[in-house]
Amino acid sequence: MGKYVFSFDSKPNLGKALLGGKGSALNEMTNLGLNVPQGFTITTETCNLFYQKSEVLWDDLKIEITTALKKLENDTGKVFGGVNNPLLVSVRSGAAISMPGMMDTILNLGLNDTTLKALAKKTNNLRFAYDSYRRFIQMFSNVVMEMPLYKFEQILDSVKEKNNYHSDLDLLEDDLLVIINEYKALYYELSDEEFPQDPFEQLSKAIEAVFKSWNNQRAKIYRSINEIPDDLGTAVNIQTMVFGNMGDDCGTGVAFTRHPSTGENQLFGEYLINAQGEDVVSGVRTPKPISTLQTDMPQLYEEFALIAKKLEAHYRDMQDIEFTIEAGKLYILQTRSGKRTINAAIEIAVDLVNEGKITKKEAILRINPKQLDQLLHPNFSSSDIKKTKIFAKGLPASPGAASGQIYFNAEAVLKAKSQGIDAILVRQETSPEDIEGMVNAIGILTSRGGMTSHAAVVARGMGKCCVVGCSEIKVNEQSKTLTVGDTIVKEGDFLSLDGVSGNVYLGHLKATSSKSSASYNTFMSWVNEIKRLKVRANADTVKDAEIALSLGAEGIGLCRTEHMFFAEDRILEVRKMILANNALEREKPLAKLLAIQTNDFYQILKSMAGYPVTIRLLDPPLHEFLPKTDKDIKTLSQQMNLETYELERRIEDLQEFNPMLGHRGCRLGITYPDIYIMQTKAIIEAVLLLKAEKIAVIPEIMVPLIIDSKEFNLIKAQMINEIDAIFCAHQTTTSYTIGTMIETPRACLVADEIAQYSEFFSFGTNDLTQMTYGFSRDDSHKFLQDYLNKQIFEKDPFQVLDQKGIGKLMKIAIKLGRKIKTKLKIGICGEHGGEPQTVEFCHHLGLDYVSCSPYRIPIAKLASAIAVIKSEMGNNS
Amino acid sequence: MGKYVFSFDSKPNLGKALLGGKGSALNEMTNLGLNVPQGFTITTETCNLFYQKSEVLWDDLKIEITTALKKLENDTGKVFGGVNNPLLVSVRSGAAISMPGMMDTILNLGLNDTTLKALAKKTNNLRFAYDSYRRFIQMFSNVVMEMPLYKFEQILDSVKEKNNYHSDLDLLEDDLLVIINEYKALYYELSDEEFPQDPFEQLSKAIEAVFKSWNNQRAKIYRSINEIPDDLGTAVNIQTMVFGNMGDDCGTGVAFTRHPSTGENQLFGEYLINAQGEDVVSGVRTPKPISTLQTDMPQLYEEFALIAKKLEAHYRDMQDIEFTIEAGKLYILQTRSGKRTINAAIEIAVDLVNEGKITKKEAILRINPKQLDQLLHPNFSSSDIKKTKIFAKGLPASPGAASGQIYFNAEAVLKAKSQGIDAILVRQETSPEDIEGMVNAIGILTSRGGMTSHAAVVARGMGKCCVVGCSEIKVNEQSKTLTVGDTIVKEGDFLSLDGVSGNVYLGHLKATSSKSSASYNTFMSWVNEIKRLKVRANADTVKDAEIALSLGAEGIGLCRTEHMFFAEDRILEVRKMILANNALEREKPLAKLLAIQTNDFYQILKSMAGYPVTIRLLDPPLHEFLPKTDKDIKTLSQQMNLETYELERRIEDLQEFNPMLGHRGCRLGITYPDIYIMQTKAIIEAVLLLKAEKIAVIPEIMVPLIIDSKEFNLIKAQMINEIDAIFCAHQTTTSYTIGTMIETPRACLVADEIAQYSEFFSFGTNDLTQMTYGFSRDDSHKFLQDYLNKQIFEKDPFQVLDQKGIGKLMKIAIKLGRKIKTKLKIGICGEHGGEPQTVEFCHHLGLDYVSCSPYRIPIAKLASAIAVIKSEMGNNS
Repeated sequence: MGKYVFSFDSKPNLGKALLGGKGSALNEMTNLGLNVPQGFTITTETCNLFYQKSEVLWDDLKIEITTALKKLENDTGKVFGGVNNPLLVSVRSGAAISMPGMMDTILNLGLNDTTLKALAKKTNNLRFAYDSYRRFIQMFSNVVMEMPLYKFEQILDSVKEKNNYHSDLDLLEDDLLVIINEYKALYYELSDEEFPQDPFEQLSKAIEAVFKSWNNQRAKIYRSINEIPDDLGTAVNIQTMVFGNMGDDCGTGVAFTRHPSTGENQLFGEYLINAQGEDVVSGVRTPKPISTLQTDMPQLYEEFALIAKKLEAHYRDMQDIEFTIEAGKLYILQTRSGKRTINAAIEIAVDLVNEGKITKKEAILRINPKQLDQLLHPNFSSSDIKKTKIFAKGLPASPGAASGQIYFNAEAVLKAKSQGIDAILVRQETSPEDIEGMVNAIGILTSRGGMTSHAAVVARGMGKCCVVGCSEIKVNEQSKTLTVGDTIVKEGDFLSLDGVSGNVYLGHLKATSSKSSASYNTFMSWVNEIKRLKVRANADTVKDAEIALSLGAEGIGLCRTEHMFFAEDRILEVRKMILANNALEREKPLAKLLAIQTNDFYQILKSMAGYPVTIRLLDPPLHEFLPKTDKDIKTLSQQMNLETYELERRIEDLQEFNPMLGHRGCRLGITYPDIYIMQTKAIIEAVLLLKAEKIAVIPEIMVPLIIDSKEFNLIKAQMINEIDAIFCAHQTTTSYTIGTMIETPRACLVADEIAQYSEFFSFGTNDLTQMTYGFSRDDSHKFLQDYLNKQIFEKDPFQVLDQKGIGKLMKIAIKLGRKIKTKLKIGICGEHGGEPQTVEFCHHLGLDYVSCSPYRIPIAKLASAIAVIKSEMGNNS
Repeated sequence: MGKYVFSFDSKPNLGKALLGGKGSALNEMTNLGLNVPQGFTITTETCNLFYQKSEVLWDDLKIEITTALKKLENDTGKVFGGVNNPLLVSVRSGAAISMPGMMDTILNLGLNDTTLKALAKKTNNLRFAYDSYRRFIQMFSNVVMEMPLYKFEQILDSVKEKNNYHSDLDLLEDDLLVIINEYKALYYELSDEEFPQDPFEQLSKAIEAVFKSWNNQRAKIYRSINEIPDDLGTAVNIQTMVFGNMGDDCGTGVAFTRHPSTGENQLFGEYLINAQGEDVVSGVRTPKPISTLQTDMPQLYEEFALIAKKLEAHYRDMQDIEFTIEAGKLYILQTRSGKRTINAAIEIAVDLVNEGKITKKEAILRINPKQLDQLLHPNFSSSDIKKTKIFAKGLPASPGAASGQIYFNAEAVLKAKSQGIDAILVRQETSPEDIEGMVNAIGILTSRGGMTSHAAVVARGMGKCCVVGCSEIKVNEQSKTLTVGDTIVKEGDFLSLDGVSGNVYLGHLKATSSKSSASYNTFMSWVNEIKRLKVRANADTVKDAEIALSLGAEGIGLCRTEHMFFAEDRILEVRKMILANNALEREKPLAKLLAIQTNDFYQILKSMAGYPVTIRLLDPPLHEFLPKTDKDIKTLSQQMNLETYELERRIEDLQEFNPMLGHRGCRLGITYPDIYIMQTKAIIEAVLLLKAEKIAVIPEIMVPLIIDSKEFNLIKAQMINEIDAIFCAHQTTTSYTIGTMIETPRACLVADEIAQYSEFFSFGTNDLTQMTYGFSRDDSHKFLQDYLNKQIFEKDPFQVLDQKGIGKLMKIAIKLGRKIKTKLKIGICGEHGGEPQTVEFCHHLGLDYVSCSPYRIPIAKLASAIAVIKSEMGNNS
């Protein structure tokens, strides 16, 4: 047609970038032969030109618009401003990327004092015509002329009040006429101009208004949040109005081509006879299910069902379709991919593959890995959530939904559980001493701490719903209450936690869990076929390991031995070991721990028979294990036969200013070699026991926090020494590997030297992030929110791996390491290992595996498969 | 001569690597025509072959040795084993790198029952001959045969006891004969062989013993400590014995060609008539000053003085010469570069340049930068130190010597000082609240903390003697005592601290300081001519700045504004600012601080007029400023009109788990913009005041702890906003730059992005080391010593920059930064900036400047000049 304006029936489809999403879809549907109310689109480029040309329409453009209108008049047999059969249009924005509700829409444009009468005559419904005109004046005044809406509503309300009406529907024809006249007077008062009677003037002003709406405040903010470039511009769609409210042979509705909650392959939706679109939404009348249209208008139903199939086949995805019936004629107003639950998404994707409509790879690209979380954990129903006020908001530390009674310490949780109560543990922050309480609670809530705080990490490991850093809540552990503002919640009261949103609700909400379906299993089998990365679990116990296997784990990438130290039967020995004055005093507790640890490793290795299990030697600063309460100190001092003050002095000696940068990790292996030697011995003894039972296991012993090759080699030599002695004593051997975590910046920088001795690398990106940023994960919550608010960070670097900084260090380490050993096995076992973007990055880095908490395994697998497919598509981003 | 053996008179000199240091020097002196007792050298390569050939001498080698001995007999007219004029030799080790006292020496080899008589006859001194034989048997038995020395000493002692002798000198000829026979019997008893009478057998065994001594335990340890490769091997020197103890025309002595303490150009040394070398050393007789040789033996003195000049001229350095006079004939036994004090070293170097013997550059290479420390600080006299037992040993945190009475808190130090007492502040560790005590003490001693602890950093900045981490000392601040073992030292008792060695002495030692001499000034002027790097000071006060200027500072590279916050007139306002609940409450204290800081900056900028001054905005975690004592909390709560519990709650809120990785640095500038804005305002207002006085200053505003370009740019934008407002208000402008510290690993990795906004970089290698290693400098002392002991680290990375790891990050940052801005100004302002190896590295990195504590400026300058010279020599190591 020209440079700026394209009719809906123009060919070929010029695409979303130029026509916007809506314009392109209308063009597409028209070309498919569907009955779309005709019209034309002004391109997004025109919008950009509009801003270059001081925000007025120019002659060339106006000529194209006039030409397009002429064609529309010819096609419809109606006349713009015509006194007999007037053409009315809608004017709508439509950008390339959907920005729902952000920009402006004007309906019924073309109405004036003359066409009003024609409309009334043609529809045989004066009230409808008046009401349409009233709405148009109000919409035009507000949207195009930026007059305040409330002044128009005041007029409407005063008429209703005077007549004692309750609803707009009560307004009579005469009342509407009064309102129309008062509207016009108000328009004149506010603009010093009469309400425009010329439809062309109405149209020009409306188009300008849509263009301007591209840069209104909410649109700008929306783009900034969603990272949509400012120079895309919006298209403007001018479309013939059709009316579903002109009688009983009219109607309007919306339908999904498949069920958006279950994915079932049947039409799902609702409609109203003799109604307009907004009547379906407003709830004034109750819409009917789409199935009854079969009875009401059997022929139209057939027609619609066919169109639905056609559109789904064309777009190769489930569609969300808006339609209107005007005088027995079906019009399709809009179609788009339908929103759906994760269950439906998987069901539909698998069905579409089975129907031969999409490939397995396309099916995989259709599922957002993040959504899988919903599938694996219980959820509150969305209707319940809509009805309930949010009581407080924290960080969504571990997904799931938990509704129960609150308790403020581990003992109380235990007691409640023994009485059959679903308990939620509430703490300011958790420490290792709370573990038992966490195990027995159905959910955990803390007022402090970030996404990688103790509570968050442990809860994710357990797959338990957890909300942390909920700073609005003041927790008083003494008085066993929590308060938000003036509301006090006491021990035993109900709270509901949503671990996906971080929302906390007062009272009890019902949580339901979805089961993995046959389609889910099919889908994951395709994911497994396609992905390259192995996906392992971070698992410290046999229970973790079993959950991980059930979720598809291909080994354990991180077994934290320190978590084994906290159980009641061993913490005392651990404390004795730590607080010993010398190696001699350490001997006895170490011997006891050896027996315990040998069994620990025996069990976990056995549970993962045939799969690699990476066991990390003791890592945290020793003071984490120390007794904190007076009672515990007293118990220990008796057990150790030490005066309390002497014990307290030793505890004091172990305190550190910056424990995260202190005496921990392999530094313990350097200063207290006997601890690592004990652990090594326990692992190898366990492997030999299993060997005797003919159970093949693959142990990988991992040394944490390495900074230098000499350091690693010294520790490795001590370990091999011990292992050789065991082999000698047992007159047998077994295979094992010794590798290191790469979690300090220096380890990355000297990875070539370390690779000379290390048999594998595993990136510990939690610590690597802490040190590279200089961010303590326990303290950074004090400023991290500001960094996100001020858009210094797009994402919390503890949640989504920082590819630019941390990623560069990883690249350096991989390059240096594989320079020495071409096939060096490299993985990642930080909290990032289950985050989709990070998994994709790890795929491109050429890692061998990622390891994550059990419940994130399907997510990581899907992200890995997506990475393969995107790579094949040449999209390496 | 052959493959293995080279006569002292062989030409050309084959050099130290092959002949060893001693062999090469003897060769050189012989070729210079000096009268050196003749002999030959078995090469270091032969030593290596010896180890390959199962540690016995082989035929080819034996033939060469025999040939060399023949030549020696010809040259001396003596006969090995001869009955009339026997040839006696010494057999000495001599490696390429001096390993003093580490390997073996045998004297008087060739003596047996026959040659003994010839020696007695020839020297006309039977007692001397007997004594020589006794000594030889003892030495050979012990050194070559590895028989225990004490058994020989038992024999000697029993004879002396029987005769009631007090000294070896009392032994008569007959006594010595008895001893010789008993020695021989013992030899037989221990070895089942007679003492070898064949001189050739003696020689073979001695050579083998010297070779073997290369691998004795102490030699191996010495090499390991001094990083000397194990495969260098030692040469063996066989040299004709000469005797200074054959009568009054004999003597022996040692002399320096210039004064080793002052550098004065005159012979300095001592000698004894009729004596052997060991008599000079043993102190049995008191040697005479060399000058009296002029009277005793005027001709020989002249001869020696000429030789001394000749050797000095030849070696182009002050020499330490050993000589013996045998029967009126002068022999030169050894010459080497003489050890000297730093004063003498500079004096001599400058004189040698003035004498035209060496170039300025050679003079610069002669001075070890580390030694300059001695010149700039007071020292204890070395004789006092020798006499005094070390009471305890800590880390040498800040050089100098301090002797005074001890006090355990700032108040007591102040009181003592007001009474004219030299006070030493003793603390477990210092905190900012001790500053006043540190200022007024003459020395500081702590029992905890490392080389970069608070006490160490602050003391170095003040140039004040300080010993830290003296863990043997238990400090009891309550009872005002310190204890080491059973010794209790009370308040007011005397201690003496050596800040160079870290030694602590009980009681009072006298400290003397050296003044900078004319030669020093000349020397430093050459250093300034040659060096490329600018050297700036880390200085926080006008006093620091003045000291820095006097020591040659070329600006301030780091002015820490937080140190300004601790003085009594401001800490209260600082605390009010920190503990304010919101920006409004912060306003008032900020306004007060603005006035104070403006004056701070005015003063320090003025003192450095014409030089750049880099002012770092507030860096440490806020809780460092908080009140710690109940008294201070009470005062503050009154001042702030807050309940104590509320104040304590706010203080509690500011506590962090890992403050070093917490809410500090520019993170404060993000969360509390008004603090940085206040500081920016204060700086610019100060600059404008100075501009009005026509004083030109060069302010560089530095933002600490940057991790991201957006973060930096946000802060910079806030600052420029403020600055523009000031310019506008004052209707004037001034130039300034805004840059950043590069002290997080991430800043290095994204330095290109940061360089787009930053006008300079300054490496903060303290934090960079902490984060890259994951070492808290406050906690790492718990394991760092193990890392040094186990040779994982050669050096403490907080003292000597880790070139491999940290250096790689710096290279990345420099490359990325200068890719964006080719001439980006880059410096270093960490504690490493004054460490010679680091300075050399920084030169090669292409930095523009280093910045260090004022007293290290001359060291850094010298190291920088040395780097230039070494580069020119093509030695970039």
